[in-house]
Amino acid sequence: MVKKPKWVVAKEQSKRAAAAETVWLFGLHAVRDALVNPNRERLRLVVTRNAMDKLADAIAQAGIEPEMSDPRKFDAPIDPQSVHQGAALEVKPLNWGRLEDVALGDSASDGPPRVVLLDRVTDPHNVGAILRSAEVFGASAVVGTLHHSAPETGALAKTASGALERQPYLRERNLADAMERLRAMGYMIYGLDGEAEQTLEDAIAPVRDRPIALVLGAEGPGLRPKTKDTCDGLVKIPFSREFGSLNVSNAAAVALYAARA
Amino acid sequence: MVKKPKWVVAKEQSKRAAAAETVWLFGLHAVRDALVNPNRERLRLVVTRNAMDKLADAIAQAGIEPEMSDPRKFDAPIDPQSVHQGAALEVKPLNWGRLEDVALGDSASDGPPRVVLLDRVTDPHNVGAILRSAEVFGASAVVGTLHHSAPETGALAKTASGALERQPYLRERNLADAMERLRAMGYMIYGLDGEAEQTLEDAIAPVRDRPIALVLGAEGPGLRPKTKDTCDGLVKIPFSREFGSLNVSNAAAVALYAARA
Repeated sequence: MVKKPKWVVAKEQSKRAAAAETVWLFGLHAVRDALVNPNRERLRLVVTRNAMDKLADAIAQAGIEPEMSDPRKFDAPIDPQSVHQGAALEVKPLNWGRLEDVALGDSASDGPPRVVLLDRVTDPHNVGAILRSAEVFGASAVVGTLHHSAPETGALAKTASGALERQPYLRERNLADAMERLRAMGYMIYGLDGEAEQTLEDAIAPVRDRPIALVLGAEGPGLRPKTKDTCDGLVKIPFSREFGSLNVSNAAAVALYAARA
Repeated sequence: MVKKPKWVVAKEQSKRAAAAETVWLFGLHAVRDALVNPNRERLRLVVTRNAMDKLADAIAQAGIEPEMSDPRKFDAPIDPQSVHQGAALEVKPLNWGRLEDVALGDSASDGPPRVVLLDRVTDPHNVGAILRSAEVFGASAVVGTLHHSAPETGALAKTASGALERQPYLRERNLADAMERLRAMGYMIYGLDGEAEQTLEDAIAPVRDRPIALVLGAEGPGLRPKTKDTCDGLVKIPFSREFGSLNVSNAAAVALYAARA
């Protein structure tokens, strides 16, 4: 038998690991939304009697057999500090498919599509809140980096308050490459940068009818140089004061509002 | 000696308790900002050697004697889960004075003043993020309820990322009464309500040059009936989708942006 080259073995291992990867969601809201999501692959549901009663309709809809657990010794492999409310669900991460399909697919809003790109935003609470805002403002997708960004976790799902099940969240290995692909699809790409000279509103005014991507960096480091260089323009949210800064999820919400079609 | 009536005793006790109330701030950013704030009354500073080096200039400016602590057994009465970064500072809550003075005082922005009112928003992370946004957009004050709202705590200060030291945050016993007092000062008061018919932008367009107060409720319960009745109008942020909702701090940021003068 021919021995496989190392890179083939590594690739296969990585594929197996990705295939085996599961996430424990917790909290009544997050678990309910994942139970009723037809695209969600579910593995195990651990619930207290109380939570089972509250989720009865969703459990029936999902057709999953719950494992009962004592509330005093909740038997799911999640952080004991988690506010699980007696419900934990093991799932596979959602597969949203290719950026091309999502970014040019049917948008929930009638206008031209909007996409949010996150350059290494690692805090799951911020990413969760951004997914909520993206859903509310009808964005086609939120795109993070494969590495150095918040993966789909229980904490992220809880902050997303259901949006994780409905809002496409893709993670791309190379963000600059994803930006070029969006540009090829007709997107105008604006990076948020406190030092920028033009405001988001002014920059977008003449191109409001086009697809627009908004790029936000993590608090502190901001956008990486390569990311900045790949934008069509750098823009700022107009502020009244020279000190202070918005939390990244608040900046994303304001940017989505300002860029609404 | 004449015995004091019960209500006098109760009032005196309440005053003593308020005077004795202290807060432990933690984290390098929050501690640094409190050390350099001339209005902040400081009681104790507990630091590791490493944190002391990083805060050396701020400690010198504050003129406080730090208590050294071992990083492996950090000796400050804060939640052991807190990300304290080796620095904790005991302080008195800031006294921002009367609503009348703050709401009609010098605004950092040139335009007519803006105030954010929070109807029982209890989550310290949300209130902290709202203080940041209020500072950035130049709001004159954030006003919460005395009860059922987030008090000044270390967690709030950390999320506020310095804004707690600079952004007036008042807590009023009766929110409807505070709203009437703002109205008497010339404020137009708009409550955010997902069911409202007019958008914030449309409602504000004709009165943009006047002082404006924005009222937000907690996620779930929303505004209380009395609060709604005391508004000049109920307004919504225009959404693309019928389901989903913004996190309250994101809603506040968007509202402040939309209501900017």
